This record gives sequence, C-alpha cells and structure tokens, in this order.
Amino acid sequence: MSDSVFVLGGGPAGLAAAHGLAQAGRKVTLVEKEDRLGGAPILSGYAKLVPTGEWAKDAIGSMVDRVAGDERIDIRTGIQVKAFDGDAGGFSVTFADDSKIDAGAAVLCTGFTHFDSVNKPEWGFGLFPDVVTTTQVEQMISSGQGVRCPSDGRQPKRVAILLCVGSRDRQIGREWCSKVCCTVSSNLAMEIREELPDCHVYIYYMDIRTFGLYEDLYYWRSQEEFKVKYIKARIAEVTSDGEKLIVKGEDTLVKRPITIPFDMVVHAIGMDPNVDNMLLSSIFNVELQKHGHIDQSNSYDGVGMTSRKGVFVAGAATGPETIDDSIAQGQAAALSAHVLVNGG
Amino acid sequence: MSDSVFVLGGGPAGLAAAHGLAQAGRKVTLVEKEDRLGGAPILSGYAKLVPTGEWAKDAIGSMVDRVAGDERIDIRTGIQVKAFDGDAGGFSVTFADDSKIDAGAAVLCTGFTHFDSVNKPEWGFGLFPDVVTTTQVEQMISSGQGVRCPSDGRQPKRVAILLCVGSRDRQIGREWCSKVCCTVSSNLAMEIREELPDCHVYIYYMDIRTFGLYEDLYYWRSQEEFKVKYIKARIAEVTSDGEKLIVKGEDTLVKRPITIPFDMVVHAIGMDPNVDNMLLSSIFNVELQKHGHIDQSNSYDGVGMTSRKGVFVAGAATGPETIDDSIAQGQAAALSAHVLVNGG
Repeated sequence: MSDSVFVLGGGPAGLAAAHGLAQAGRKVTLVEKEDRLGGAPILSGYAKLVPTGEWAKDAIGSMVDRVAGDERIDIRTGIQVKAFDGDAGGFSVTFADDSKIDAGAAVLCTGFTHFDSVNKPEWGFGLFPDVVTTTQVEQMISSGQGVRCPSDGRQPKRVAILLCVGSRDRQIGREWCSKVCCTVSSNLAMEIREELPDCHVYIYYMDIRTFGLYEDLYYWRSQEEFKVKYIKARIAEVTSDGEKLIVKGEDTLVKRPITIPFDMVVHAIGMDPNVDNMLLSSIFNVELQKHGHIDQSNSYDGVGMTSRKGVFVAGAATGPETIDDSIAQGQAAALSAHVLVNGG
Repeated sequence: MSDSVFVLGGGPAGLAAAHGLAQAGRKVTLVEKEDRLGGAPILSGYAKLVPTGEWAKDAIGSMVDRVAGDERIDIRTGIQVKAFDGDAGGFSVTFADDSKIDAGAAVLCTGFTHFDSVNKPEWGFGLFPDVVTTTQVEQMISSGQGVRCPSDGRQPKRVAILLCVGSRDRQIGREWCSKVCCTVSSNLAMEIREELPDCHVYIYYMDIRTFGLYEDLYYWRSQEEFKVKYIKARIAEVTSDGEKLIVKGEDTLVKRPITIPFDMVVHAIGMDPNVDNMLLSSIFNVELQKHGHIDQSNSYDGVGMTSRKGVFVAGAATGPETIDDSIAQGQAAALSAHVLVNGG
C-alpha cells in the first residue's frame, strides 16, 4: 500500500491535480516527459488565454510556480514511464532510467497533440511560408515579436483564419470537433486587430461554436468592437499568385465561389489525441475510446474514472477540452484519487 | 470555527459536491428548496442524458440515493436560506424557519432556470397547444406516454425542433448561448425517431454546436442513422392554418423563404440564470456577472471561487453547463471547500 499519488503530465489538468492532492495532504509525484512543466499553454507559447485574457506565462506560470514550491510534490521532468504494475492502492511506476516509485493511485493528465497541418496539404501549409498555424501566431504575440509574415517580416494587411483544420474532417480521419478553436480564433483575431488596427481579419467557418458565455465575449465582441469578419464557407484550396496567398472556396450563405487574396493565412489547428496514447494505453492498461482518447466512464459515479481501478484521467487526455474544464477535471480527479488512497 | 460544509442545491453539481465532501470525511449539510433532490434532470423529468444515454432517473437517481444513504450528509429539502453570516471558516446559515447551522465553507450549486417560452410569443408557445418545449418532450418520453400532440393525442408525423429559444437572442436580453441545446435536441430528435420511425424530424438552427466528442455521437449519428434533417434558418414566426402548425422563416443557406407545415413544434429552450440569483447574491454577498450568473474568478487559483472567501460555486449557477462539467465542477469545488475548512 502507498499513500502517495502519481500524476502524469504537467499541463493545466496535471498541475491542478497535483496541487489539489497536495492541499488535501497527500504526497504527489508529478512527472512530465518534456523538460519543463506547463503543458501546451507554456510549451507551445500561447498568448492571452480564453476567457480571462491573462497571459499564459502568467496564468499557467503561476500554477507551475505553486506546484514547484510545494514540498509535498516531487517533480520529475524529462523522463518517461516504462511500466506501471500492481493494483489500486499499491501501484509501482517504473521510469525509463529504471528508477521506481510506489503510488496508491494515478491521475493521467497526458493532454493532446496539436494537429499537424501538413496533413491538410491543399490548404497550403508547408508550401507557402505565410501559411501558419494558430500556435505560431500565439508565439508571434507571446514572444513580443508581433504578427508578421514569415516570408519577409512585413505586417500583414489581410489575414484569413481557417477554422476546423484537423477537426470535423472525415477525409483525414478527424470526425470530432476540437471545441476551443472557434473561441481561440476569435480571441486571436482580436489580438491581431489590437496590434495591427489596419489589418483586416476574416474567419472562415462551418459553424461558429463560441458556446455558453463565450458567445458575447468572443463572437459578438470580435465583430462589433474589433470588426472581425466571419465568412461561412467551404474552403477548396489555398494557393498563391506569387505575391498574395489566395483562399478559394464557396461562400455557403450566398452559394457563390469566392476567391480572396491575403497576406497571411492561419490554420486553426485542432486537438488530436496525444500521439503517445497507444503506448500509454498499453503501459497503464487503460482503454481508449474510438478516436484514440483515453476512455472515461460516466461522471455519475465519480469524475475521471478509466477502465482500470485506481487510475484516473483528466483534461484533454479525454478529448478536446478547454483550460478551465481541464483544471476543474484535474482538481476533481485529485479528490477521486485522494479518497481512493484513503480507502474510500 | 466549523468543520462542516454547507452545500446549496441538490442537482448534479450539488450532489457531486456533497458526496465528494463526505468521501473526504467532511460533514455536510445539503439544502434544496424543492421538496426532493435531483435538480433539473429529476424535477423536470428528463429522459435519456447526453452523452451516456442513461435515463436521468437512473443516472442522477443513483447520485441522489448515494447522498441520501450517507450518514455524513444531513439533507434538508423544501426549505430556503434566509441569512448567511460570518467569515470563511465560521459561517452561520439561517433558514426560513429560523433554524441555524454552522459551516466552515459553502458551495452554491443553485443551477439555472429554464427559459419560459411565453417570452418568445411569435414562435407560438402558449398560443397553439402543439407548440411545446424540449422539457415537455423529455417528459413525454420519460413518463412512458410517448411523443404525442397535446391537442388530440395523435402521433406526430412531422416535428420541428427550433434551436436557440431564449439563447443568442438580444431582442429578449439573452445574448449567451445555452451550450447544451444543440446536442440535447439532436439526442431528442433521435429518441423521437426511435419511437416513431415514420415521423420526420427537422432541426432549425443558426449554428450547430455539438462541440468536442458530441460531433459524431450526435450531429453525424442523428443525420446518418436516424435521418434527422437540419435546416439553417432564421425563423420569423410559428402560425397555424387551423390544422397544421406552420413554421415560417428564411433558409439562410439558399436565401429563400421557407414555409413548412408540422404537427408539433418543439422549442429548444435555453438556460436562464436562476430566477433567485439576485436574492442569492444578496443573501450570500457574492457578485453576479453581467448576465446574472454567479460570478467566479479565474480557475488558475482554484476552481469555483466566488467574490466571497469560503463561498464556492459550481455547475450551471455559473452559466450554461453540461451535466458532466457540472459534476466535475461540483467535485472540484468540494476539494476547494474541504481544503479551506482544513485551514489550507
């Protein structure tokens, strides 16, 4: 039997889980395969987060600092798990360097992998330098460099953001919606307009999914205060006339072909299951659901239960998720794990 | 100082919070103003829940039974709170009958109020008996009565579900999106088609917001397996020709007026802030956000913190919310409250 808990993954869900467990008086080992904590918001250099507008480095950075300064939490970065044996209450975790720890429970907060836009070649990524991803634009903003065309460093006068790149797209095996891209793109469009007031920003969409309270904070505010333009369209391809990028498609509201020149085209890339999920599923002996996310049972019996007793899951490891909900799930799973180790 | 926690509201969030606290070894008083626990899914008689497909009476009923059978949880139903005094760690709750309890922390899980369709009179509710709400159709199904036209009890041959009734509608002061109605309506459409295979079901929408993993479970499955039809439209009015209900509007994809007869028209009603929120805000001295939901601070510092230390909030009290996320937030807030009472 062990009364400590093993948390895998140092993103928002894992940071919330580790902190919650420590607060409940539990010893925690927090393991991250990358060389530092923070998950996608830190490692991918996000700019201002939805819905608080706080910089990722401050918001998630404060979660990292809190965990790093907690003596109840043993942090190991830059290391992977090799084996996970035993049963609820008495697990043994073996790392790549053959070191081992005991844990009464585990919380998998292994997140997602950003969709790789080269898998959508007809939309120009990898072919034209000024076709970039939302993550790259986040980095342009968070680095302080500003939004610039990679080809020549100029300020773009016209930017197109294409939604659902790697989401809602059966042709490339991504049936799911990535949940956050609409709102993140609205947010990013406002940030671009704030930095470059003369730049026109268009968002090409199928459905605008700024659900719940995001509706007026993002969808309406971006149109009314920031003059972001939304076009419901099916995109055929992104090409170049040698000077400008050309977005070709059909405006599905007026049922007419549209061909519009842009300086920069941004792919709003979706959330794939973590590329390691097959391996994680095998190591932890937890089931995946049909798209490859870590499967969780219904919430009525408790939050974040996987197919293996004593192993919980939280955040985007279960499917596309917002940061707020990842944090709530991480904190909730902390309670599940705490109670289980207590013998509850 | 008190080491017990006060949970207000017996819906999914409150049930999860109370159970989580009890599991952590905490004494809980769970108070519900209605005469029984379960919240909207039980009190409004929901049918099969998204996304598990379990009957509400079983799924949420099991959460009620679990709490009711827990001696650490003191349940009081059919009573309202009159006053809430003191500070974090030492609150005093006074009920309408002047009885009092002490509590170290409180979790507000006061949920939402279903939009009242009479506030959208041009869409025929209250005027024509066969214009009903999603909640009424849920009740037809969960009661075992089946989907029938209220006017004469016949099985409808054609049903229209109108989305965004009381949501995304500035004319009536509801700017927000209610988050769940698209998916709930897809689910309901499939249930109608399952019971009445000859009945045609149309969903009128602005945007289809079956976000995340709901996309293929609801949006695609309802179209492909259940032949539910989706029409992107602006609805002008619902009238009657004396025999059929007539839905008039504009198909926004083909930009043409459409006038279609139906036997039954279903309003997919939104989630208003709880009608008691002004009162709750005053009693608990917690701030509301601009639409009247209970305001919560950012999640980075912990889940569900209101403007008053020691008073937490979870679920649809904070804005439109899914049942799963309400449960996660309730369980997460339980940990926040537990830790606070521990002096953490």
